[in-house]
Amino acid sequence: MTDERVVLLTGGTGGAKLAAGMAQALPEGALTAIANTGDDIEIYGAYVSPDPDLVCFWLGGLIDERGWGLRGDTFAVMDGLRALGRDVWFNLGDRDLAWCMERSRMLADGATHGEALAALGGHIGLSARVLPMCEQPVRTWVSAGEDSDPIPFQEYMIRRRAVGPVHDVQFRGARQARPSEEVLRALKGASAIVIGPSNPIVSIGPILAVPGMREALAASPAPVVAVSPIVGGEVLKGPTADFMSHAGLPLSAAGVARCYEPLLDGIVADEPVGGLQLRQTDTAMPDAGARLRLAREVIAFARSLG
Amino acid sequence: MTDERVVLLTGGTGGAKLAAGMAQALPEGALTAIANTGDDIEIYGAYVSPDPDLVCFWLGGLIDERGWGLRGDTFAVMDGLRALGRDVWFNLGDRDLAWCMERSRMLADGATHGEALAALGGHIGLSARVLPMCEQPVRTWVSAGEDSDPIPFQEYMIRRRAVGPVHDVQFRGARQARPSEEVLRALKGASAIVIGPSNPIVSIGPILAVPGMREALAASPAPVVAVSPIVGGEVLKGPTADFMSHAGLPLSAAGVARCYEPLLDGIVADEPVGGLQLRQTDTAMPDAGARLRLAREVIAFARSLG
Repeated sequence: MTDERVVLLTGGTGGAKLAAGMAQALPEGALTAIANTGDDIEIYGAYVSPDPDLVCFWLGGLIDERGWGLRGDTFAVMDGLRALGRDVWFNLGDRDLAWCMERSRMLADGATHGEALAALGGHIGLSARVLPMCEQPVRTWVSAGEDSDPIPFQEYMIRRRAVGPVHDVQFRGARQARPSEEVLRALKGASAIVIGPSNPIVSIGPILAVPGMREALAASPAPVVAVSPIVGGEVLKGPTADFMSHAGLPLSAAGVARCYEPLLDGIVADEPVGGLQLRQTDTAMPDAGARLRLAREVIAFARSLG
Repeated sequence: MTDERVVLLTGGTGGAKLAAGMAQALPEGALTAIANTGDDIEIYGAYVSPDPDLVCFWLGGLIDERGWGLRGDTFAVMDGLRALGRDVWFNLGDRDLAWCMERSRMLADGATHGEALAALGGHIGLSARVLPMCEQPVRTWVSAGEDSDPIPFQEYMIRRRAVGPVHDVQFRGARQARPSEEVLRALKGASAIVIGPSNPIVSIGPILAVPGMREALAASPAPVVAVSPIVGGEVLKGPTADFMSHAGLPLSAAGVARCYEPLLDGIVADEPVGGLQLRQTDTAMPDAGARLRLAREVIAFARSLG
């Protein structure tokens, strides 16, 4: 296919790894990632956008081996805050902070989130586009564990260490949101749409909760393929099990497929799924080779459904 | 004197050095510094207050030998911003940034500037109090050099490298300001008031421009003594000459005295001054010994006038 334009819906780690593989598998400029902004947080006078940034850092080959943040980053500012008595629960490296501060400045100067992210991405030489799912503030709040008051997602993940069970998930502000023009154009012009192996409820969920997003996926002529985040029957990272359980879905590729119904034309998973086109393959991405191999398989599978 | 309470009006370097000497010369808690906030700037999502901070860093023994910022600080965030294409004209170390970010957070949480500075000072073990001259925003703008549009003080100092001549000085917002309760109490209860060896026009000037400040100095029973910033006929740091010239004042201790008329009961200088009680002594402060010696002389001189 000469004019391949793949759109990837993604949250953090799993989807970001697949994005890195896809960027390698595809011609320059052929990949557009639409990233969850429900985890965004304003802290330290900066605008932090964890999922879009993780995708950028993976795409730019800058991700640290700890799995978040910039490789080799230092933490002098966080150390400085701790020395001043601050409870530093949200850790951010110095260059990561600079990245987020620069986004804040651009936003204050009137840039859209999409424009700010594009400018930041340009400075690290990204060849793929990363788009925030929308320009309006959508914030994921979670009620979980013993204290069932809803709290912002990052506090649940970091302060509460994602202790379940999950009682409620809210995408605050979602009703007032809408996909940006760039997002709609990317979906409309896509030759394939891939839902990355991210948490279906709290990573992909906010994206699909933006009014008009499901409709835009359904209206796109492109086949829609999901990649199951469940590997060997388990979730490799994050609290997906608690959220699937809360949603009444089994922790399986079939459960993931059900979550995205009726959007999917096919699914990529390492286990059988009934009633849907399936590419059964090893979905683990422990290294660059595995990411590239899976990306190629996902793209070929989507192409076969087009 | 058993109940000595010395109040020091101060800008940056010169006054801050004398503050360090005075804190050593006086019993714990006997020194209150009232610092110029006309150079304050909001940048990098943080509230930077150069003169009060410089005084704190000098008092805490944390000043870097470059003359500003924290000793041994790193600059990872500024490097990160430069890597993202930002024109970093205002340099701030990582721990210095943390200090200013923490102040921003406290201000956003409803603290006064004075409370925030007291909390920060507590974390570096300050025994002297440092008070912002007022709680209202007063900003020094300068028109100088070939382009005579007024610009904020830090831009004039750093971006324009303080190139003269000075055409105009404005203390924007001063008319709406007033000394805080803490400042008024400190002045009222002082046994001596010292105007530090800082730029009379743009460091001490904003403090005296706060409506009610001159009156509070005049009403205090304490003798008011200035320390001339002119050492050996020259200004050791900063663009004092251009500002004195703009104000029509000679670059001499007599010029400094005239600037503070009629507030002064005496002056400490290394050159003769007519018509005023004078302590003529070496006013250079190249090291801790010199700072302590000058501080003791200033305090003894003020005491002799009380």
